Amino acid sequence: MADIFDKKPIAVIGEMAETGVSPYYRTAEPNAVMAGCNDYLGLATDPRLIDAATTATARYGTSCSGSRILNGTLPLHEELEARLAAFLGCEAALVTTTGFQANLAVGTLLGPGDAAFSDMANHASLVDGVQLGQGTRFRYRHGDLAHLRRLLAAAAPDAGKLIVTDGMFSMEGDLCPLPGLRELADRYGARLVVDGAHDIGLLGARGSGVAEHFGMPGAVDLLSGTFSKCFGSLGGLLAGPARIVEYLRYSARPVLFSAAMSPASAAAALTALDIIETEPARRERVFDHAERLHNGLRALGFATAPSITPVVPVHIGRSRLCLRMWQALHDAGVHTNAVVTPAVPRGRALIRVTPQATHTDEQITRILDAFAGCGRRLGLVAGRAERAEHDWTPVALARPKLTG
Amino acid sequence: MADIFDKKPIAVIGEMAETGVSPYYRTAEPNAVMAGCNDYLGLATDPRLIDAATTATARYGTSCSGSRILNGTLPLHEELEARLAAFLGCEAALVTTTGFQANLAVGTLLGPGDAAFSDMANHASLVDGVQLGQGTRFRYRHGDLAHLRRLLAAAAPDAGKLIVTDGMFSMEGDLCPLPGLRELADRYGARLVVDGAHDIGLLGARGSGVAEHFGMPGAVDLLSGTFSKCFGSLGGLLAGPARIVEYLRYSARPVLFSAAMSPASAAAALTALDIIETEPARRERVFDHAERLHNGLRALGFATAPSITPVVPVHIGRSRLCLRMWQALHDAGVHTNAVVTPAVPRGRALIRVTPQATHTDEQITRILDAFAGCGRRLGLVAGRAERAEHDWTPVALARPKLTG
Repeated sequence: MADIFDKKPIAVIGEMAETGVSPYYRTAEPNAVMAGCNDYLGLATDPRLIDAATTATARYGTSCSGSRILNGTLPLHEELEARLAAFLGCEAALVTTTGFQANLAVGTLLGPGDAAFSDMANHASLVDGVQLGQGTRFRYRHGDLAHLRRLLAAAAPDAGKLIVTDGMFSMEGDLCPLPGLRELADRYGARLVVDGAHDIGLLGARGSGVAEHFGMPGAVDLLSGTFSKCFGSLGGLLAGPARIVEYLRYSARPVLFSAAMSPASAAAALTALDIIETEPARRERVFDHAERLHNGLRALGFATAPSITPVVPVHIGRSRLCLRMWQALHDAGVHTNAVVTPAVPRGRALIRVTPQATHTDEQITRILDAFAGCGRRLGLVAGRAERAEHDWTPVALARPKLTG
Repeated sequence: MADIFDKKPIAVIGEMAETGVSPYYRTAEPNAVMAGCNDYLGLATDPRLIDAATTATARYGTSCSGSRILNGTLPLHEELEARLAAFLGCEAALVTTTGFQANLAVGTLLGPGDAAFSDMANHASLVDGVQLGQGTRFRYRHGDLAHLRRLLAAAAPDAGKLIVTDGMFSMEGDLCPLPGLRELADRYGARLVVDGAHDIGLLGARGSGVAEHFGMPGAVDLLSGTFSKCFGSLGGLLAGPARIVEYLRYSARPVLFSAAMSPASAAAALTALDIIETEPARRERVFDHAERLHNGLRALGFATAPSITPVVPVHIGRSRLCLRMWQALHDAGVHTNAVVTPAVPRGRALIRVTPQATHTDEQITRILDAFAGCGRRLGLVAGRAERAEHDWTPVALARPKLTG
């Protein structure tokens, strides 16, 4: 009899043992520069958020101790939903326990006769959400509109169709081709779901995300998102037409059967939204840092394409080399993310670097210096002398177009 | 072309419109008795938890801003995992963002050749976890060991087998038949996963859950659980053999791809564990209240079987009647949970009542008085005169056997 607990070894655990490098589940080191954190705007340690969380905890306690639907709804959740709907330009919004669960809830829309069309590079939570839905599942090559068009054309004409994509991709930092997606959705009668986990709060003049960046308000039929990145909190959101948000509110299992966002997290997210709406300079600053990182790394000989955002992927290739580079950077006092499979395809391991509005210019310099030294030592880039000859193209970032 | 946003109306929304009763997504009313909250031990508003959450927020901020694996691990998470492993008598533990996601992670164990055997009344998150796994899925009738045995016997002998059940069922308050499940697991070479969401912190002399209640330490191969009930916090846990916990740590998508439990929630859960370990009288008090509720309701003529726990299901039957009863109780100043499909099968709607250690005796009296008055008015139970004739059996609760 087979024992279901007898599992094949996990590749990266073997690679960690071989290289002696353990980049995962580490606690922060006080003297290192944190260059691998999704707190783009630096709000998780902002005193205003800490204050709001503390006040809400004192008032409502440390937990909602139940689901939103039965007993866990606070005025804070209602206020957050109303504020988000206005901020995102949607009729209604629903906040969920995590961003992961907001994406799982998307699967609720997929009935037996329906068809989902997903970008192959979508976030795991969106993949799992579609997996939990019914109907037929298609996957189109990352950002490949021609492939998507062929799949849409081949699907049953009377199927309800849902196109599902990340807005800003979390590992390679590129954006979904929103204009083309919208056009295909209209042509084939599909609805378009965009996960704005990384772009809400960061992209667009007002920071409302990828649709604003493309100058296409209303182009997304249903938005999902998270509070654990730009909002310095924890939780998720869904925003769209009132009847669809209501439908999800009463039928999505990850909404119905999970305890509500904690009072502290709801209060922190609300305060973050105030700051996102009133301090666009934070977004500017993240992009300033991102530009220095992209161009500095490119000048050194590293590749950071296809990213045009503050997610800066430094392509390494093999997992073992990626682990060694992570260790070298770590020893140089810079904490990055070693991203290997299953987060990226095998052979495409990368070091992910993310700037924060609260980084100093000196910290960005320190990150770049570490990459220069470690990259040269590991043979990833040339030394200073040879480097002068090296051609590189500056990045063209998806900067928020701030007015004034 | 079908529009995937054209959805069939949701039954309960129609029933709410018809009856004019809206029991869902309500904020708490200050003067009502909260009788529908999973904070059994009353810890979510305990000053020690509030203090711990506040201190952690001041120190670490309002978010971990990333996954445990890449950048979101705090010493608090590590301490909580070590403490939980000791408390639950397991080699290792892993804390997850939510209890929902802990159960989703269970699906990671199901490979292509494996088979899962699930109790039909399992929590939605466990159902979805199994759904996300691979292999063959079987469902056995709620608590029916004979049915489970037939399914195990009929499955491919060389398949890896996983039996999956709630420990204490969240809607009807009964327990899984652990001795029989263990015996079948051993006979058929299956592993046994138990979701202790409602029983960890509540059942057993030390409060470690359903295995302790049955006097069967080590009977569960993998435990899952939540911090949003007895622990007065938010988050989930997995506990079992070190190699399986390690496997999940590096392969479960709801673990890898979700932001870590917030500093406040981790600190609150740790403090709750201190209290669970040192204040068994809180469990006693919940059971005292539960006994009064069960027997008081039974004496009135309500049915609360098969529950033998502080989840007190008051069976109503039809959804509309359940909504009306909820409203009547609400008007009498008692907030309960109106549980209709999909949380329970159609036609088996119930009012769920849950006592808390922090309820006063007077509050329990108020709940019982409300049920007496509303039940009589809606014709659910007889008046006082007839009631004298009514036979009823007292409940035999799964009380923690406290020593001394």
